[in-house]
Amino acid sequence: MRSYKEIRGILQGRITSHQWQPGDLLPSEQALSEEFGCTRATVNRAMRELADAGLVERRRKAGTRVIQPNSHPATITIPVIRQEIEDKGQSYRYLLLERLEALPPEDVRTQLGLSDNEKSLFLKSLHYGDGIPQQLDIRWINLCAIPEAAEESFADIGPNEWLLQRVPHPNIEHVFRADQATAEEQRLLQLDEGEPVFTIERRTWIVGEGITYVRLVHPGSRYRMATRSSTEPTFS
Amino acid sequence: MRSYKEIRGILQGRITSHQWQPGDLLPSEQALSEEFGCTRATVNRAMRELADAGLVERRRKAGTRVIQPNSHPATITIPVIRQEIEDKGQSYRYLLLERLEALPPEDVRTQLGLSDNEKSLFLKSLHYGDGIPQQLDIRWINLCAIPEAAEESFADIGPNEWLLQRVPHPNIEHVFRADQATAEEQRLLQLDEGEPVFTIERRTWIVGEGITYVRLVHPGSRYRMATRSSTEPTFS
Repeated sequence: MRSYKEIRGILQGRITSHQWQPGDLLPSEQALSEEFGCTRATVNRAMRELADAGLVERRRKAGTRVIQPNSHPATITIPVIRQEIEDKGQSYRYLLLERLEALPPEDVRTQLGLSDNEKSLFLKSLHYGDGIPQQLDIRWINLCAIPEAAEESFADIGPNEWLLQRVPHPNIEHVFRADQATAEEQRLLQLDEGEPVFTIERRTWIVGEGITYVRLVHPGSRYRMATRSSTEPTFS
Repeated sequence: MRSYKEIRGILQGRITSHQWQPGDLLPSEQALSEEFGCTRATVNRAMRELADAGLVERRRKAGTRVIQPNSHPATITIPVIRQEIEDKGQSYRYLLLERLEALPPEDVRTQLGLSDNEKSLFLKSLHYGDGIPQQLDIRWINLCAIPEAAEESFADIGPNEWLLQRVPHPNIEHVFRADQATAEEQRLLQLDEGEPVFTIERRTWIVGEGITYVRLVHPGSRYRMATRSSTEPTFS
């Protein structure tokens, strides 16, 4: 018996290979369940996922049609900066600039879901490749969620790597932006006059509890983020 | 009978829920096939996909262990700019600035896999939200792959939307960057002095044939790219 995921995969293949074109009407659930020798409920589940992924549009009376896509999906992998630097064949160095326990500002409290008087750990660190600064990491860690961070000096390991060891699969939100550099960023990242920065803001959490909020700042001239290529829509 | 995808999903859940921690040894394929009442081949296939997705590491004699991840995955959806502008409740306007058939420069020929004397279509266009420029689209389209582009004026429809109708599911590569604006970009996008641009370079192709190479340029102060959040590694 085929699972709905297998059937979803087959139907998806017919769409991405253009065997079924945008606007085309799909066969009925009845016809598909006969073709695949499975129940209508299984076909229905597969169709629902295709609809959720934006591949088809289901209308009660009019049937299911292939959607005209209006976006390009992209999957990116953001490695820890040490990995990224070593992959380029450069020697990696990490430097902790600042470490203190403090009350975060309101926008960070909102991002981490903290109440007014909960202390967090503030860390500022720099990551070098071949002696040249490649990333500035400005970060708050929620000490209620990760109390052991208070015991860690972060003198020898970057907070990103350290957190991945403690919380390997958090929920994540990212925002990517091109920004003008602040005076501090220009100085710490050794930027040229007028050189912009590529910033990644990341918020991670598990079961509703905020873990970390971080701004990763990269020299515009030395950083690019690339995607893997794929024809596959992603199912979550 | 459970499919390898179902078993993969169950094993993945045990890893992302931290029931199995980084470094933990997984049960043997024999033990798992007994647990799930399926063949060892099915368990093996599920394990192989988990290994490909970077969740586990398989060693011939030593067994399979949960990997310590060293990256954050992120899935982004890059909508056509009209959609993006209308989603913000702004009125959309499109303006074609330049359209000519020409030999592309060498870097573009390389990206599109063109030989020396193949003409392509060059298009430069602007997309406005509430009368303010939001995106500059500088693009080459391979006329060998998409000859009908030579017949289209692109006076009324942006090339991104037009191409999505013709080639709805191409292979895609993206590069994201923060750049200093050129004088032309500053003028066309009405940028402030020193305002950087967020650029998206996109290359699309089908079955080895290049379709389009485009540089999408956005005002740094008016553009941000955000990801969906997910604990799920992606399987392609």
